[in-house]
Amino acid sequence: MTNTPLRLGIAGLGTVGTGVLQILHRQGDRLAARAGRPIEVVAVSARDRSRKRAVPIDAYAWEDDPVALARRDDIDLFVEVMGGHEGPAKAAVEAALNAGKDVVTANKALLAHHGHALALRAEAQGRVIRFEAAVAGGIPVIKALTEGLAANEIRRVMGVMNGTCNYILTRMESAGLSYAEVFEEARQLGYLEADPRLDVDGIDAGHKLSLLAAIAFGTEVDFGHVALEGIGAVTIEDIRRAADMGYRIKLLGVAQMTGRGLEQRMQPCLVPASSPLGQLEGGTNMVVIEGDSVGQIVLRGPGAGAGPTASAVLADVIDLARGNRVPTFGVPATSLRRVRPAQGAVAAPYYLRLQLIDKPGALAKVARVLGDAGISIDRMRQYGHEDTTAPVLIVTHRTTRAALDEALTALPETGVLAGQPVALRIEQL
Amino acid sequence: MTNTPLRLGIAGLGTVGTGVLQILHRQGDRLAARAGRPIEVVAVSARDRSRKRAVPIDAYAWEDDPVALARRDDIDLFVEVMGGHEGPAKAAVEAALNAGKDVVTANKALLAHHGHALALRAEAQGRVIRFEAAVAGGIPVIKALTEGLAANEIRRVMGVMNGTCNYILTRMESAGLSYAEVFEEARQLGYLEADPRLDVDGIDAGHKLSLLAAIAFGTEVDFGHVALEGIGAVTIEDIRRAADMGYRIKLLGVAQMTGRGLEQRMQPCLVPASSPLGQLEGGTNMVVIEGDSVGQIVLRGPGAGAGPTASAVLADVIDLARGNRVPTFGVPATSLRRVRPAQGAVAAPYYLRLQLIDKPGALAKVARVLGDAGISIDRMRQYGHEDTTAPVLIVTHRTTRAALDEALTALPETGVLAGQPVALRIEQL
Repeated sequence: MTNTPLRLGIAGLGTVGTGVLQILHRQGDRLAARAGRPIEVVAVSARDRSRKRAVPIDAYAWEDDPVALARRDDIDLFVEVMGGHEGPAKAAVEAALNAGKDVVTANKALLAHHGHALALRAEAQGRVIRFEAAVAGGIPVIKALTEGLAANEIRRVMGVMNGTCNYILTRMESAGLSYAEVFEEARQLGYLEADPRLDVDGIDAGHKLSLLAAIAFGTEVDFGHVALEGIGAVTIEDIRRAADMGYRIKLLGVAQMTGRGLEQRMQPCLVPASSPLGQLEGGTNMVVIEGDSVGQIVLRGPGAGAGPTASAVLADVIDLARGNRVPTFGVPATSLRRVRPAQGAVAAPYYLRLQLIDKPGALAKVARVLGDAGISIDRMRQYGHEDTTAPVLIVTHRTTRAALDEALTALPETGVLAGQPVALRIEQL
Repeated sequence: MTNTPLRLGIAGLGTVGTGVLQILHRQGDRLAARAGRPIEVVAVSARDRSRKRAVPIDAYAWEDDPVALARRDDIDLFVEVMGGHEGPAKAAVEAALNAGKDVVTANKALLAHHGHALALRAEAQGRVIRFEAAVAGGIPVIKALTEGLAANEIRRVMGVMNGTCNYILTRMESAGLSYAEVFEEARQLGYLEADPRLDVDGIDAGHKLSLLAAIAFGTEVDFGHVALEGIGAVTIEDIRRAADMGYRIKLLGVAQMTGRGLEQRMQPCLVPASSPLGQLEGGTNMVVIEGDSVGQIVLRGPGAGAGPTASAVLADVIDLARGNRVPTFGVPATSLRRVRPAQGAVAAPYYLRLQLIDKPGALAKVARVLGDAGISIDRMRQYGHEDTTAPVLIVTHRTTRAALDEALTALPETGVLAGQPVALRIEQL
């Protein structure tokens, strides 16, 4: 135990920043015992100094400008919990690194867009950026990947990492409500981001996936090549039909290194209802990591909220106080590989829902189109007629996305479909 | 990246030791990239040099005596994967520490019995002992507790940490077999330790729980006060009745700091069938950690086997190669508290199964005994008669173990019971 404190400057005093101050207030001695030295907040910055907060901030020096905070001589570590991937957050993190400070951030958007450049900058200064709070909230998944499972070649990393989407999907199922209805509920409950597309279009979760992929595969962050598909098109009917077949629908992120490059996708998928991912309810997050030696590790916990996020921020702070300085993405930034992005490289079974016009030979025509595309059928279920059409569910054997797209293009030409076919990937666990 | 290798001496070339060599062989470059320096095996030791192994060992210096290996000047780090809590393993770890080497071990029994003394010895030498592989196999749970969740005051830590017991219990349920039948199956499959009591009496899992508790609560390891109860008395009938009420039976370890001291228990418990613990099948391990800020974190993965265990051993090795030197139990050994052990301090609901003699007023007598002990009934279910007796299931409201024991003592005096009542704790999640 040394008496030299680790001196923090905290930029952003919203939910997370206030949460960090509260823990330091309540658990300061415990944290010092674990860190081996006191952790001390020296200065803070936020948009509005006079706003009422759950903790007093008078004891800390105040800076209006986070960049000025980042440059202060009397801080060792810059904690960025402002958010936003351009503007002040980016400028302040850059300023901190340039001034030779380590950085702890909860900012997934910033790192998804600029993580590689920032990691290089940090490294040039002999500094590191830590970002446990940016991915899956309170779950120590960055640490698990960079340290706990460091002896593994990672095969695949998957995650349900947007609590709001998982809340919407599980609530649709349990209450039998439409997407629009639950979306409105979630909005009123304050579960959605100011720009809800960040949640429901999978952007927020995609940011997180791109960070996990970089660490898992030792590659440059490549958010631009995450195939994003939101949950807006998921219907209560598909949720129910999938359940009939033993599946649940999740907004699932998957990153996988393939012979054709790195595949990253964030999309609604079917997962077995009996699997840990299938059993995940509400706002909880889950990350599944598959390594060559360890097999499958599943981590589950709260993905958001003041306490869990502040817990992750402070775990990074304690690491740095202890002198644990793993490089930003687990290996030196200069050694991260730039790899080819791959799309549709990994074959999978698919769930298809078709609305079939009730006339003789309709099903045979569908089967022929699938067969022509090289897709074989694992299971099929036809439901009772609804007026002049009947829903048909098909679970295919493993097939490529290309073959599926070929079939989806050809299906309408059969003239036996009412409406668009629905196709959802079944992720094998 | 430095070129100075971290030089290992490995004592024990059974499943785990061989697994470590295999990973180093296959992934040496990857490990060096993550560790920032080469990891090199210099010398090994085992009982039998000439035994056929999956990896060649000619390239390494050989020592017949692990103590001699531990003292070699040309190693920096001693890896102990021999097992056994006395004799050569203990002597070799002590020798390594005395010679100023760090130690990585997979030996839960050694640390459960001698962890505090060894941690003090390590600290006096400026060394650390790392033991990720000793608890829950490949799951990075030690790291999660000491580092990832270091900002939390831990409320409770729970785990299913003996895969063999979980295999036996889930197999009894799925195949409808008795304990004795599945025990024999497990023996023939080689799932049991040479001394099977280590598994089925909860000793092995109790070792692990005592280590988790020390880290979670900053206390001296106190295996002697883990209340141990094995799975030998669990019947297929209880498994089925519990399922009827929405529960599954698990050999669950729970450590909790109470107003009366530290409670540590390893016993068959009922957990909600829909909870992550309830859904755990077969040999998989799970640890649940509850912190004041983070809430509940669940970690799941393989608890044994060459790959997962070697993955954990090498994670510790990489940490030390990186210079990440967290104290053995997360805080300095001299600051670990010796706390009072507590038994039965935490109230819980209980599951009771009684075989009631079929005569008027029998149920009323049981209800009166429970009421007199201050135990109130949440749910009760009486089944059809079997000859002249009828099984009755009771789920109580939260009660203390003392009140329950009072009732269990008084119940036979009613004269309406056939056989012993069964009482199992319901752990609330």
